[in-house]
Amino acid sequence: MLPTGARGPKVVAFGGGHGLYATLSALRHVTGNLTAVVTVADDGGSSGRLRSELGILPPGDLRMALSALCDDGEWGQMWRDVLQHRYATDGPLNNHATGNLLIASVWNLLGDNAEGLDFVGRLLGVHGRVLPMSDVPMEIEADVHDNGLKKIVRGQSKVAIAPGRVEKVRLFPTDATAHPAVLDAIADADWAVFGPGSWYTSVIPHLMLPDIRRALAESSAKTLLALNLTSDEETSDMCHADHIKSFIGHSAGLRPDVVIADPTAIDDLTKLDDSVTAIDASLILRQIHTLDDPGVHDPLRFAAALRDAFEGTIGDLADKR
Amino acid sequence: MLPTGARGPKVVAFGGGHGLYATLSALRHVTGNLTAVVTVADDGGSSGRLRSELGILPPGDLRMALSALCDDGEWGQMWRDVLQHRYATDGPLNNHATGNLLIASVWNLLGDNAEGLDFVGRLLGVHGRVLPMSDVPMEIEADVHDNGLKKIVRGQSKVAIAPGRVEKVRLFPTDATAHPAVLDAIADADWAVFGPGSWYTSVIPHLMLPDIRRALAESSAKTLLALNLTSDEETSDMCHADHIKSFIGHSAGLRPDVVIADPTAIDDLTKLDDSVTAIDASLILRQIHTLDDPGVHDPLRFAAALRDAFEGTIGDLADKR
Repeated sequence: MLPTGARGPKVVAFGGGHGLYATLSALRHVTGNLTAVVTVADDGGSSGRLRSELGILPPGDLRMALSALCDDGEWGQMWRDVLQHRYATDGPLNNHATGNLLIASVWNLLGDNAEGLDFVGRLLGVHGRVLPMSDVPMEIEADVHDNGLKKIVRGQSKVAIAPGRVEKVRLFPTDATAHPAVLDAIADADWAVFGPGSWYTSVIPHLMLPDIRRALAESSAKTLLALNLTSDEETSDMCHADHIKSFIGHSAGLRPDVVIADPTAIDDLTKLDDSVTAIDASLILRQIHTLDDPGVHDPLRFAAALRDAFEGTIGDLADKR
Repeated sequence: MLPTGARGPKVVAFGGGHGLYATLSALRHVTGNLTAVVTVADDGGSSGRLRSELGILPPGDLRMALSALCDDGEWGQMWRDVLQHRYATDGPLNNHATGNLLIASVWNLLGDNAEGLDFVGRLLGVHGRVLPMSDVPMEIEADVHDNGLKKIVRGQSKVAIAPGRVEKVRLFPTDATAHPAVLDAIADADWAVFGPGSWYTSVIPHLMLPDIRRALAESSAKTLLALNLTSDEETSDMCHADHIKSFIGHSAGLRPDVVIADPTAIDDLTKLDDSVTAIDASLILRQIHTLDDPGVHDPLRFAAALRDAFEGTIGDLADKR
C-alpha cells in the first residue's frame, strides 16, 4: 500500500466483475491515482434483479470495484464485508448483496450515480474512484457461432455462458454516451488498463462506446492489456493472440502499448510474441498467479508486473529464450 | 445538543417505534448518557417480513432509535437518511427500509445483536446506545374486550389495530430473558423513562419481562412516565388516569415518580391529578407538542420538560388552578 499522500501514475482501469477486482487489488499498490471504469450491462443475479425491480444501473460490479479499493483498516474492512455480504434465505432476499441494496438507496437519495459511489466510497475509505462507464443501463448482444450456426444472443448473463465462439458484440442503446467523468479521467490519464476479465462482457464493452474510443485516441495515455490466466465459455476456443486480435478488432485503431501475460497460462508463446511484435507493443511475461491456483491473480505479483509496465522495465522471460 | 464529553443524568428510555423516537429526539438534548431499550415483538411491515425471512429480531424499531440519536453533522444525517430510506417498487423489495437490511447483514456477520447495533451506531455517530430488550424475537398476545365479547389477539401488528379495549397483554416465549446489557444499564441508571408510545405494544411489553421488573425494583433509578398526546386504537377508550393504572397493573409494584403530560391533551385533569397524587408521584404539565400539530412532540419543549423532571423543577400549571 502506498503511504497516504503518495501518488503514482494516473491510471484508468476498465473492466467489470472479478477481473477488474483483480486489477484493482493490484493497482492500489502501484498508484494512489486510480479511476475504475465499470461495465453497466449486467443482467444476472442480484444486480439483474435490482436493475429490473428498481430501474437502476446494475450495482454489483461497481460494488466489487469499491470493495477492491477499500481501506485496509478495521473500519474499511468490516464495511467491505458488510457490503459484500449476501443474504441466504428461502425468500426474495436470497443472494442479494447488501452493498447492492445500499448503493441503490444512496442513488435514489442523491440522484447521481457517480456522487452516490463516491459517498459509499467514503464509507469504505476507498483508495481511488469508481465510475460507471455510462449513466445508462446497457444491454449486450453477441453474434455467436456454434457448430456452424450463427446465433444472436442477447443479455450479458446469457452471452457469458453461450456455447460457441463469440464473433462480435454490440451494446444497446446504441446512442448511449460515456459518463462525463470517465472521459475526463481518460483525458488526464498516463495509462489505460484493460483486462483481465470476461472478454466480451467485461473488457470489450468499454470499446463499444464511441466517445470512450475517441477519448482514448485523443489522450496521451498509454494502453496496457492484461491477458487472462484462464479461459471461460466466452473465449474457450481463443488463444492469447486471438484476444489481442479481438481487442484491436473492436477498438477502431487503438493498439495496446504493453501486454502482460503469465507464461504458465500461455498456449502458444511464439504466436503471442508475434502478434505483440506485429502491433509494435511490448510483451511483459511474469508469473502473476498465486502459488495455490494458476487461475487466480496474486495481487502483489500482478502489482509488480504493472509497475514494470509503467516504469518501462520490460526485460522479460521472452528475452531469455 | 450537549457539547461533546458533557454528560448529564444516566437515563434508560424504554419504548419502540415512533413514541421512542420522540423521547430520544428530546433526551439527546438533555443527557449524553443515554441507553434506549427497544421492544422486539414487531411482526408487521418490513420488520415483520425480515424477521420471518431471516429469523432475526425485528430491526425497524431499533433502526428508528438509532436514527433519533444520529449525529447532527452532514455525514450522520446523510447516513440516517440512507438507513431510513424505503424502496418503492412493484416487487419484493417494496417498503423495506435500507437500514433494516443493513442491520440484518451486520448481525449476520458479527453474530451479536448489541455489537451489531453499536457498529451501525458508529456509522451514524449515534449519541448514546441502542439495545434490544431481549435477544429473543418475541410475540405479543392481548385479551381484548369488544362489545361484551372477549377475544384473544396475537401478534403486535394485530393488537395495535384491534377494535375494543385491551385488558391484558402477554409476551411469548414466556421464559425470555432481558438482554444482559439492559439489566446493567438499569442498575446504573438515574432515571428510567417510559412512554410516550403505543401503550400495549411499545410501552407495557418492557414490564412483562420479570428480570427487567426486578432490575427496576433493585435500581435506585427514579421512574418517569410520559403520557401520550393522542390516543390510538389500542387505547381509544382509556383516559390518562387509566394509562397510569394500566402501567401499575403490569409493573408488579413499580410506580412512577414523575408523570409528564401535555395539558391540551388531557381529557380529565382532576382525575389525572388524583391518580398521580394517589401514588405519591409528581405531575409535570407542560406544552410539549409542536405549534402546528397537537399530536406531535416538539423535541425542545419535550426536552425542557424532561430536564424539569430530572432536576426536580416540578412547579406546574396544576399548581396555578
